[in-house]
Amino acid sequence: MDQRISLVTLAVDDLDAVRRFFEDGLGWIASRQSQDGVVFFQTGGSVLALYPRRSLETDIGRAIPSGPGGAVSLAWNGRSEAEVDAAYAQALAAGAEPVTAPEKVFWGGYCAYVAIPGGHLLEISFNPFWPLGADGALTLPD
Amino acid sequence: MDQRISLVTLAVDDLDAVRRFFEDGLGWIASRQSQDGVVFFQTGGSVLALYPRRSLETDIGRAIPSGPGGAVSLAWNGRSEAEVDAAYAQALAAGAEPVTAPEKVFWGGYCAYVAIPGGHLLEISFNPFWPLGADGALTLPD
Repeated sequence: MDQRISLVTLAVDDLDAVRRFFEDGLGWIASRQSQDGVVFFQTGGSVLALYPRRSLETDIGRAIPSGPGGAVSLAWNGRSEAEVDAAYAQALAAGAEPVTAPEKVFWGGYCAYVAIPGGHLLEISFNPFWPLGADGALTLPD
Repeated sequence: MDQRISLVTLAVDDLDAVRRFFEDGLGWIASRQSQDGVVFFQTGGSVLALYPRRSLETDIGRAIPSGPGGAVSLAWNGRSEAEVDAAYAQALAAGAEPVTAPEKVFWGGYCAYVAIPGGHLLEISFNPFWPLGADGALTLPD
């Protein structure tokens, strides 16, 4: 089982609202592979999917507790503290709720957390020890 | 806010158990950036992090309900139905619980779901319409 994650799927109660957050709020472009009832965003070599909670419940044959749970956090890393500030402001303007404002954190980074519409956690972070590639990829130092 | 996801962080109650699942069970190699209390796996141009639930609660300043929630599902895509069968068997042998056995699904794929130790959902999937790159990257067709 080669070391990769192909898709990250967020189960959402209001697909349109979350789609609008990413498209209209953040300016992301949904893939033409998106269909009624599922939205895909290319994110580097993997894919972020938005999928109705009820559809996922049907697929897995069990109920999913309502609410985002919070046991998974996605992170968007920027290239500087200023990029984090700008992205945090953009996320709030797009309808995310503040969780923690951008601040220097104990390990030397500069991070904020927001909850996107529906409640999933999104960390917005600058890690000076982990520079991003030109293509935005995060490759861990040796 | 460029279109990318840098990290996917799973909040876990038993960090060592989940780490062993990926390392000993699946054969993944943790990054040397891992430290006491946090484990990182390089996954293409992004990173999978394992992080104690209490640590994430401290970071975000709010409680996270116990249990995986289920509102996020990670997917590992293989290159064939046989690869899905093999990965599913490997995941179960590594301690994952079966949720749905590999089966052909309505949209033409071949998919299974398991719950990894601690309960996070992992889909194991072959999508004949979305071939993987040589490096394992999933790039959506136009």
